[in-house]
Amino acid sequence: MFPEIDTPAVLVDLDFAEANIDRFQAHCDAYGLAVRPHIKTHKLPMLAKRQIAAGAIGITCQKISEAEAMIAEGGIDDVLLTYNVLGEEKLSRLRVLVERVTLTVVTDNDAVVAGLSEAFVNTQDPLRVLVKCDTGAACCGVTTPEAALALATRISEAPGLSFVGLMTYPPVGQEVKVQSWLVRAKGMIEEAGHPVEVISTGGSPGMWQAQAVKVATEYRIGTYAYMDRSLAERGVCDSADCALTVLATVISIPAGDRAVIDAGSKVLTSDLLGLDGHGHVFGRPDILISGLSEEHDVLNAPDIGLSVGQRLRIVRNHACMVANMLDHVELIRGETHQERKQVAARGQVW
Amino acid sequence: MFPEIDTPAVLVDLDFAEANIDRFQAHCDAYGLAVRPHIKTHKLPMLAKRQIAAGAIGITCQKISEAEAMIAEGGIDDVLLTYNVLGEEKLSRLRVLVERVTLTVVTDNDAVVAGLSEAFVNTQDPLRVLVKCDTGAACCGVTTPEAALALATRISEAPGLSFVGLMTYPPVGQEVKVQSWLVRAKGMIEEAGHPVEVISTGGSPGMWQAQAVKVATEYRIGTYAYMDRSLAERGVCDSADCALTVLATVISIPAGDRAVIDAGSKVLTSDLLGLDGHGHVFGRPDILISGLSEEHDVLNAPDIGLSVGQRLRIVRNHACMVANMLDHVELIRGETHQERKQVAARGQVW
Repeated sequence: MFPEIDTPAVLVDLDFAEANIDRFQAHCDAYGLAVRPHIKTHKLPMLAKRQIAAGAIGITCQKISEAEAMIAEGGIDDVLLTYNVLGEEKLSRLRVLVERVTLTVVTDNDAVVAGLSEAFVNTQDPLRVLVKCDTGAACCGVTTPEAALALATRISEAPGLSFVGLMTYPPVGQEVKVQSWLVRAKGMIEEAGHPVEVISTGGSPGMWQAQAVKVATEYRIGTYAYMDRSLAERGVCDSADCALTVLATVISIPAGDRAVIDAGSKVLTSDLLGLDGHGHVFGRPDILISGLSEEHDVLNAPDIGLSVGQRLRIVRNHACMVANMLDHVELIRGETHQERKQVAARGQVW
Repeated sequence: MFPEIDTPAVLVDLDFAEANIDRFQAHCDAYGLAVRPHIKTHKLPMLAKRQIAAGAIGITCQKISEAEAMIAEGGIDDVLLTYNVLGEEKLSRLRVLVERVTLTVVTDNDAVVAGLSEAFVNTQDPLRVLVKCDTGAACCGVTTPEAALALATRISEAPGLSFVGLMTYPPVGQEVKVQSWLVRAKGMIEEAGHPVEVISTGGSPGMWQAQAVKVATEYRIGTYAYMDRSLAERGVCDSADCALTVLATVISIPAGDRAVIDAGSKVLTSDLLGLDGHGHVFGRPDILISGLSEEHDVLNAPDIGLSVGQRLRIVRNHACMVANMLDHVELIRGETHQERKQVAARGQVW
């Protein structure tokens, strides 16, 4: 299995990734919902461009450094940065970014609005800003439509800024509640005289119900390109759809019910995402990936039936984390190795 | 707090790291036990050299690529590679390594012995090999002293290889059992005519009982240089000894009992190591780091009492994983920033 690739390696099957991208784009096209992929999963400009070629209206990035890495080689001209940007260093990089692409940012508080306004008061065009809304996920975001109105007003009045809409990362399976939250906020804000041009929602776990939040204008989605074990276990995809796998070698069979492979949490991550075991081994549903140290994974099965030197492919619980561990991935199509590709935005957390 | 460093950042306080290194070296010196630090924690040649200057006999690496990164700038000439090396690509790199440093490797099975022998049959000096022993940790390693004898004999008879001893990563708090396992194996192997020159044990959790395994000749230890929350919670160190911290900025206060910082699992890792919460915030024992997404950490306290833009320092559960997430760390001494340093062996998993 890929003798030319040294293990451990992260494999990305482009056939599967492209099929995943196209399938969801078609789903959203059927409902007239725009797609804005989140590049946090793959961190590869080539896949971001493939997503745009499939019909996406632009990309989503979480950090400025990710956006910088994504637009460096050209071909991407619309970026939504779904993060509260704070501090002079980051604001000056944001000013550079806005000269190169159509940039929209988000905020959920006055301090960020003040910083953005000060940074953009003298630029040619106002900076496009969305209000980040907490519709139940309990991370960032204003927690009520009233607070969304107050912040939208603040943005509209701030020199250098232009309020353009709302953004949320919704809790899974609560589309009715999310829809009602957003409709109410939109109504209040438009009544106050501020048009709500964009309503951005998203998330891979709820992807097949994307259309249920009817007020949304666009859907942000990351993991769908690769899929992973957590999504397969939720029934969002089939295990066979997973484009990202880890290629590892059995390096030890200390007992008849145990094998050890040459990849641990420094490749595979220790992200359990609430699941039992750390992943699944292709073709071996009987194996539990039970233990994980930094450089070893322990596989258990009543009859392990493997041999030292044997190669295995593993689907991990959380694709986005795995893609962030190594400096490059190996692009494949089926059993054919295409090329080694640098993960341009790996570790870009600024 | 370090206004010149953009957040999120991984800070390494050299004063603390050096004190930690010197304290354990003095402990082992008092018992006549050699120290062989594991570089997996810091991945910095400068700290490896500092450990050797303090009295360490050499270093431990887990992967060949780590060893390559460590010896690139010189000053390190003794490396123990505690990993089963398999495959032509890796074996050829091992041959290059052995020309530059005194290299010792480990194995727990015949397949690895066969590969090593084939690779080193024509080299000038035989390759030094230890038998990896499972004394209770249930990862890699031969599981009985009898199996250790069989493998030691196999190594001794293999062209190109020299059996030099035993290596184990012992279970914590079972020093008596480990001592007896190793004494028995040593006795059997020496009776068969193979001198056991090296017995290597280790582990930061059991560091202050290092001397309890009296038959050991050297102690491998990694996390002790930085310490972390998991070791502080076990009573191995004080929280104040932790040399590695994460500098983060509060970017959102969505509610009176919740704040969000600009670092998530892509900086901080999701390694819980069995603990409650993902770390502790300097000076705020009341805060629980409850939630973790890839780019956000959620902090909870009945009265969060923070402000947007405020900087916090956080000690994470597992230092070794954090040091592997970003391409560089910021070296500090107390409140003084020294320099930004590339983590030479980051992501070196081959």
